[in-house]
Amino acid sequence: MNQMLGKQSICFEQPAYVLSSASVVGKKEGEGPLKDYFDKIHEDPALGEENWETAESAMQKEALELAVQKAGLQNSQLRLIFSGDLQAQSVASSFGLQGFERPVYQLYGACSTMGEALGLAAMSVSGGYADYTAAVTSSHFGTAEKEFRFPLEYGNQRPLSATWTVTGSGACVLGKEGGKVVVTGITSGKIVDYGFKDSLNMGACMAPAACDTIYQNLQDFGRKPGDYDRIITGDLGQVGQKILFDLLKEKNVDISSQYMDCGLLIFDNEKQDTHSGGSGCGCSATVFSSYILPKLEDGTWKRVLFLPTGALLSKVSFNEGRTIPGVAQAVVVESAQEEK
Amino acid sequence: MNQMLGKQSICFEQPAYVLSSASVVGKKEGEGPLKDYFDKIHEDPALGEENWETAESAMQKEALELAVQKAGLQNSQLRLIFSGDLQAQSVASSFGLQGFERPVYQLYGACSTMGEALGLAAMSVSGGYADYTAAVTSSHFGTAEKEFRFPLEYGNQRPLSATWTVTGSGACVLGKEGGKVVVTGITSGKIVDYGFKDSLNMGACMAPAACDTIYQNLQDFGRKPGDYDRIITGDLGQVGQKILFDLLKEKNVDISSQYMDCGLLIFDNEKQDTHSGGSGCGCSATVFSSYILPKLEDGTWKRVLFLPTGALLSKVSFNEGRTIPGVAQAVVVESAQEEK
Repeated sequence: MNQMLGKQSICFEQPAYVLSSASVVGKKEGEGPLKDYFDKIHEDPALGEENWETAESAMQKEALELAVQKAGLQNSQLRLIFSGDLQAQSVASSFGLQGFERPVYQLYGACSTMGEALGLAAMSVSGGYADYTAAVTSSHFGTAEKEFRFPLEYGNQRPLSATWTVTGSGACVLGKEGGKVVVTGITSGKIVDYGFKDSLNMGACMAPAACDTIYQNLQDFGRKPGDYDRIITGDLGQVGQKILFDLLKEKNVDISSQYMDCGLLIFDNEKQDTHSGGSGCGCSATVFSSYILPKLEDGTWKRVLFLPTGALLSKVSFNEGRTIPGVAQAVVVESAQEEK
Repeated sequence: MNQMLGKQSICFEQPAYVLSSASVVGKKEGEGPLKDYFDKIHEDPALGEENWETAESAMQKEALELAVQKAGLQNSQLRLIFSGDLQAQSVASSFGLQGFERPVYQLYGACSTMGEALGLAAMSVSGGYADYTAAVTSSHFGTAEKEFRFPLEYGNQRPLSATWTVTGSGACVLGKEGGKVVVTGITSGKIVDYGFKDSLNMGACMAPAACDTIYQNLQDFGRKPGDYDRIITGDLGQVGQKILFDLLKEKNVDISSQYMDCGLLIFDNEKQDTHSGGSGCGCSATVFSSYILPKLEDGTWKRVLFLPTGALLSKVSFNEGRTIPGVAQAVVVESAQEEK
């Protein structure tokens, strides 16, 4: 039962099926290029709640409830929930998921958390530890700016390398059988630190980690970039994408024909003034749930390498002048028809 | 290959062995009742580093390096590391573990994180996803007070219900074979919220979750409290312990003959002025690594239910007047001789 592959990957003997997914986003995301793909768009960034933090919890609850419904299940059938967000001490999940009354493992991988959650959810199903499990993450522009940068009221100018935190939550339900998409493997990411310190240029901080995980995935699985229909990072944005291409070029790997980035898909950066692109735990989660999965379900794509990317910083670490290490957690998702 | 048991538990077909453990603590912990059990006691709370945050990272690095050495392994042989701490965005782990250059899944379960990490590490080994894996968590009095409460310089008075965050890190290495202790099962915890709001009485906030997980463990495994030599919570302290006993009494469960609490073991509350007891991610991790495991290794205890407990709050959630939900993540650890 050895499913370990190469140095950092797992190839599942029993792949886990993605049974359903759901995405809930805010107004700005609902005005972007993917507006027709999301399940629900909220006009009010506070969702009628007292503050942004509770609003984010409410979005996470809504996304997971919807995914469970779409899978034709009851909340009580979820065996394990893997969740995360960007708020300090992951409280968006603590409050968003308590109503489910199901076991929860909370995770923190910054914007890579959906990759971590999907990986662990697939491991749980494939290992026989759970019949149904869920992966859910969220972010919120208001909570994230407050948590990491400046009060919104301050109205600071944003450099062109800055990304815009997505207000949204994406959720997937995984199970042993029955879906049209399977998670066939994962490549777990190392913490990679190139010494960047600019929290308004997270693409640069995360690109080395994305390079590392992509390269390791190709090595471990013995694949070429062309063996994937798409290689999709979380939120490198325009700046990070350029660096990623350069870094991979040094390793003689060219992914430019397959490459996409959730952060570049979710906003029209020019029209929506989002600079380098979208970011946040909710970015890769909502784009995966709304846009990537359906393309695998209908067979448009056969195999995708999905790797959410995270910048590992806190307000304190930033103020103490520390670097911003990156991490990228990859999941191999395939159209179920393709599975042998 | 169905290893699911009851509603929330897993009974491992292939148990995971705990190959080694290590504990690194601060001065105050080194003056407490467990002083002879710890691997390393640091007199300087900053470990010669620039600040407490980097000191905590250094402790985590030291604990894991030592555990790996004790297992007779190289860092490079770790397939996956499960880690966590209490700092916002888990940065203690981000900086402490990057030097290992191994895949990391960062977790956040407040002070329950060592239970979460051990559970996922055991799942990884048992499922064939990793030959060697590690669980490591840390906390630091200085970083935690700054993160959750008041600046130390303010010198606020602490109510008797308050706990004292342990400065320390505990690490375990798990593998497929070779140790004297096995993880035979886990019971994953739900988020339980009784509406408490006092961050200086975390025992009360966590006791309902501990009750829930203990009761569910006994139900799922069809066991009585006496089937465990010890039932050991993370850091309920004196106040939380009393509430836990009362809550379990309502369910006709009496664990008083088996009960221990890491928070009550690590300090002499009267002499050390630590009020209700020790707490923090590092509390259960260091007590497990230094005191509990050896008693299972030498057969003093045959079977222990170890359940770190976490209070799910942040500075922001507290200041917004929200409740403090609790969670308890349980691991069943047994002396390897006992394993059938």
